[in-house]
Amino acid sequence: MRALLFDVFGTLVDWRRSIATQLEAFGSERRIACDWYALVDAWRGEYVPSMDRVRRGEQPWANLDSLHAASFDRLAERFALPSLSAIERDWIVKRWHALEPWPDAPAALERLHEHFILATLSNGNVALLVDLARHARLRFDAILSAELFKHYKPDSETYLGAAALLGCLPAETMLVAAHESDLRAAAAVGLRTAFIARPGEYGSPPAEAPALPAEFDVAVRGLDELAERLAG
Amino acid sequence: MRALLFDVFGTLVDWRRSIATQLEAFGSERRIACDWYALVDAWRGEYVPSMDRVRRGEQPWANLDSLHAASFDRLAERFALPSLSAIERDWIVKRWHALEPWPDAPAALERLHEHFILATLSNGNVALLVDLARHARLRFDAILSAELFKHYKPDSETYLGAAALLGCLPAETMLVAAHESDLRAAAAVGLRTAFIARPGEYGSPPAEAPALPAEFDVAVRGLDELAERLAG
Repeated sequence: MRALLFDVFGTLVDWRRSIATQLEAFGSERRIACDWYALVDAWRGEYVPSMDRVRRGEQPWANLDSLHAASFDRLAERFALPSLSAIERDWIVKRWHALEPWPDAPAALERLHEHFILATLSNGNVALLVDLARHARLRFDAILSAELFKHYKPDSETYLGAAALLGCLPAETMLVAAHESDLRAAAAVGLRTAFIARPGEYGSPPAEAPALPAEFDVAVRGLDELAERLAG
Repeated sequence: MRALLFDVFGTLVDWRRSIATQLEAFGSERRIACDWYALVDAWRGEYVPSMDRVRRGEQPWANLDSLHAASFDRLAERFALPSLSAIERDWIVKRWHALEPWPDAPAALERLHEHFILATLSNGNVALLVDLARHARLRFDAILSAELFKHYKPDSETYLGAAALLGCLPAETMLVAAHESDLRAAAAVGLRTAFIARPGEYGSPPAEAPALPAEFDVAVRGLDELAERLAG
């Protein structure tokens, strides 16, 4: 194995709390009352459907910043936010560029970097991922994005395209992700797979940790454990 | 200014001595007599013509590893090298993935990284640049390559495409390069430009340092000086 591809949202960063915390501060400063966590959950709820419209060809290619902006505009209406300036709206959409890492991510990536090529493979656009990696101090050798292939995951073009750009065979490449559908799509085209449990991605984790899925090459409860397994 | 794009061969790494040194060791081990510096110079001589055939549409897109392989095969014949195995030939072509940095490059990039987004913008393919950045310990936020645009520099698609992927306007983006033609093409589409003198790129530098060109936004004699000017 030569290269690790990382899903980003949910796998490496805690998008939900990061966005909600920033929007709460924004709302409190401007005295805008809103259930910001509900807004963030609804925003994330628009994520897959908005990409699916592109994947099915119902709308031309649009990068994730654009999809986030369009879905935020719909939600601003649904949540009855007061009218925002263009600068405020762009600032809000850019909160996806400034997410906090899960606590294990920065050090585990440094450690894995000594042994493997590390790249993102995210539906986030390149500019978003570059800003995010700088903000969260996540070390990658390359920023690979759906934007480079004009295909969103789980389209096979993304997994195969990323391996090819790194000069690796699919079997020399492992996708690391917290989402089974992403991993299954990667496995279907020959990549290896590592499942990282992130039970708190969508809110408080259940009292009892769910069982790890058995269908992937590796399944672990955090990135420290992945680093231990792959680079220990 | 938000992002610095770096030309790589000649600007950040000493390709000539790096390749020749490795080929000399290869030849000495196998008792192959050859003027390896002459071969490296001839190999580099094929670089622009081979990309120009792609740029003019005379041959379909081929990444730099492929162009290097094809031109090496022609030179092996011209330099009357003995027959090499496929593994030896691939190893030789991959020497372009393992070039040594100019001594000022690693520390200057670390320093600039605190202030700007740093990316490659090279005609080298992504896999080559990833391997090279790891080998030479060059810090980038993103690996941008002609390969992503299926256009070689100095086609404008490369400069504008790189700025767009980083979410920057051309005027927020500066190309850093040791070659005036590259910088002129970037300036023509609105990027800022920094010229780095590398008088030893093609062999021993002249006794007297040539004057710095006046037409670029910045012109310096090394990356330390660039870091001092931009991040001092």
